[in-house]
Amino acid sequence: MCDAYINKPQGFKACGIYAGLKTDPGNSGNTDLYDVALLYSEVPAKVAGVYTSNLVKGHSLVRSIDLINSKKAFRAFVINSKVANACVGQAGYEDAANIASCAASELGISPDEVLTASTGTIGVRLPVDKINAAIPTLASSLSREPEAGHKAERAIMTTDTVPKEVTATITLASGKEVIISGMAKGSGMISPNLATMIGVFTTDADIDTPILNKLLKDAVSHSFNRVCVDGDTSVCDMVTLWANGASGASIEEGSEDYDLFAKALTDLATDISRMIAKDGEGATKLLEITVDGAASDKDALLIVSAVAKSPLVKTGFFGEDANFGRIITAAGYSGATFDPDKIDIDISGLPVCRDGIMLAFDEDEAAKLLHEEEIKIDITLHEGDAFDRMFTCDFSYKYVEINGSYRT
Amino acid sequence: MCDAYINKPQGFKACGIYAGLKTDPGNSGNTDLYDVALLYSEVPAKVAGVYTSNLVKGHSLVRSIDLINSKKAFRAFVINSKVANACVGQAGYEDAANIASCAASELGISPDEVLTASTGTIGVRLPVDKINAAIPTLASSLSREPEAGHKAERAIMTTDTVPKEVTATITLASGKEVIISGMAKGSGMISPNLATMIGVFTTDADIDTPILNKLLKDAVSHSFNRVCVDGDTSVCDMVTLWANGASGASIEEGSEDYDLFAKALTDLATDISRMIAKDGEGATKLLEITVDGAASDKDALLIVSAVAKSPLVKTGFFGEDANFGRIITAAGYSGATFDPDKIDIDISGLPVCRDGIMLAFDEDEAAKLLHEEEIKIDITLHEGDAFDRMFTCDFSYKYVEINGSYRT
Repeated sequence: MCDAYINKPQGFKACGIYAGLKTDPGNSGNTDLYDVALLYSEVPAKVAGVYTSNLVKGHSLVRSIDLINSKKAFRAFVINSKVANACVGQAGYEDAANIASCAASELGISPDEVLTASTGTIGVRLPVDKINAAIPTLASSLSREPEAGHKAERAIMTTDTVPKEVTATITLASGKEVIISGMAKGSGMISPNLATMIGVFTTDADIDTPILNKLLKDAVSHSFNRVCVDGDTSVCDMVTLWANGASGASIEEGSEDYDLFAKALTDLATDISRMIAKDGEGATKLLEITVDGAASDKDALLIVSAVAKSPLVKTGFFGEDANFGRIITAAGYSGATFDPDKIDIDISGLPVCRDGIMLAFDEDEAAKLLHEEEIKIDITLHEGDAFDRMFTCDFSYKYVEINGSYRT
Repeated sequence: MCDAYINKPQGFKACGIYAGLKTDPGNSGNTDLYDVALLYSEVPAKVAGVYTSNLVKGHSLVRSIDLINSKKAFRAFVINSKVANACVGQAGYEDAANIASCAASELGISPDEVLTASTGTIGVRLPVDKINAAIPTLASSLSREPEAGHKAERAIMTTDTVPKEVTATITLASGKEVIISGMAKGSGMISPNLATMIGVFTTDADIDTPILNKLLKDAVSHSFNRVCVDGDTSVCDMVTLWANGASGASIEEGSEDYDLFAKALTDLATDISRMIAKDGEGATKLLEITVDGAASDKDALLIVSAVAKSPLVKTGFFGEDANFGRIITAAGYSGATFDPDKIDIDISGLPVCRDGIMLAFDEDEAAKLLHEEEIKIDITLHEGDAFDRMFTCDFSYKYVEINGSYRT
């Protein structure tokens, strides 16, 4: 996706820099290291955000939530990886404010026009000196070039192995074009709500804040909130949507343009969610789990969540083992209400369970399907009309390796 | 614990046999294979049971639940490993009944005096012919010898690497002695409620069924229901307590003897729960997680459960990595209500978090503590008086290996 970069919509600039926070290339295998990203809008942008449901929240995140809730428009976003800026007490708020002030001064804007986000290890102070020392170069490197956007994405990645960037251009009813771009980090500590990640979307459409909030919330609810890598929800998760109006086109609620924009944003969020699941720590396979015919939305979500989080299901798919009893087991303990004697399960189109009875199936055909990199697990309950879907990945030796040694 | 065996209480006999269900020594490393166990009481025994909360239940288990709910006394218990007898439809009930009939006929008792349990792979028919062919030898081998009890334990093990047998002798107020013994299997697919396992307790005390039920329920609630290996709850879990009165001593509710017995049974159940967690699939460490000062029992349980189930916490301890931010993260997303700025965390006595702030600690001292085989994680909330505790284990490469290839 080299055509996708966060600064593609008009009026946005970006850059990433290496400020000395990361000490080694980690799992990315990249020798070109980046650890601080800067996003800048030439004109004030409205911003919508959705945040982690964790009771414990990082200090950079809390600062941004407070600002988004009280301010109307923003100009810049500083995001660092390696250190989460969480669980360090009052000093954490001061560190985030310090960095925002430094960036504001360099950019000639107000500190409260600068949002902050941090991702990485919890319980460690931000190296403010290193970050602030890098900010002048970062600010002077801001650019509309694709490469500058790619560097910003590289800078927010932690254990991700591939960049996650998306873009779409929409032609509105008026014939005007607006662009939406997105970038994200997120690989481990991924669970609904919210996937453990930082996601940023930009658009040059002009959209009022209440509408922007609705668009983002709707797009996230069935994309980022339906990704699970390990069931752990981080303290720093956030997704923001920036709309700076630089295209001169505006989106009004209830219009045909609104529907176009909403669909494009949801599709981009879904694409990026699939990328996150597929790039889950140590993942070798993407698993797409659906439940259909549930009695209620809650039951459908309970089941897709339980199956997506089950270590037994996930290690089984890693081993390409046709041990499908683990799926019905997870559905059974999910807390959902259903008749176990009516459940059907298909694996990538192969029927493996009908009316709660595991079927004999062609082991060679199953082995072939299980060897694929993308596997569908479809569960049908015959209880009602509710449907849900979740993306997850398998659980490998590599996951254990990465998470047995991430901090050090 | 070679002095502990299930047939130690008076009037109980046991044996285990290899009926050809297991095809290889699995993870136990034993070349002496056993896969069908038989427990027998010379006089009718009262039986209490607690069962999996999974909506999907195995057929051998459902048969036993129905019998325990309707019958007053039992004589025998047939338990097989390798095949769970679950999700095979009506045939599964017939298979269980068929085996019970065969055992009853051999023992000269009624089929509804024979309970059944199965543990292993879901969705596969029980090899009834093999089991029934082994039953005559099994019945004629019944014995009160310790070795016969150990064979029974071996026969119910699946991926367990060590036998789990416990015993205690209690001297009652009258001077009479009663014995309690217990055995269990359970290694993977372990989650509260109930730990994925089969547990059997026997006693030669005479105890009325309602009292027996209460004793077992109380003992299980803070032992087996507080063990977590991978968060998956099986469809075949059951713990039964058999009381045959062969000692001539009876236990009445409200008596001093009752308290003695209740404490001994709870201690045995706790010991066996620790063994199960420590022998979790691929485990290298036992983790004991406590929460104190929670606002409610529910909050305390939510937090110990979230921490015990977190793959990030578990892989971190496997890697002996002092990444304690993952513990506060898990507490934060557990759903419990608490003030994150008041939480304290200690690891095996080492303070690592105070008032929600991660502390600097001696890395050498932490490395030494993390290298131990048993680690305590103590979380204090300062919100109220509620306490809970859970046993779990770390998450290793071996877990992935075992569960990527268990079925085949």
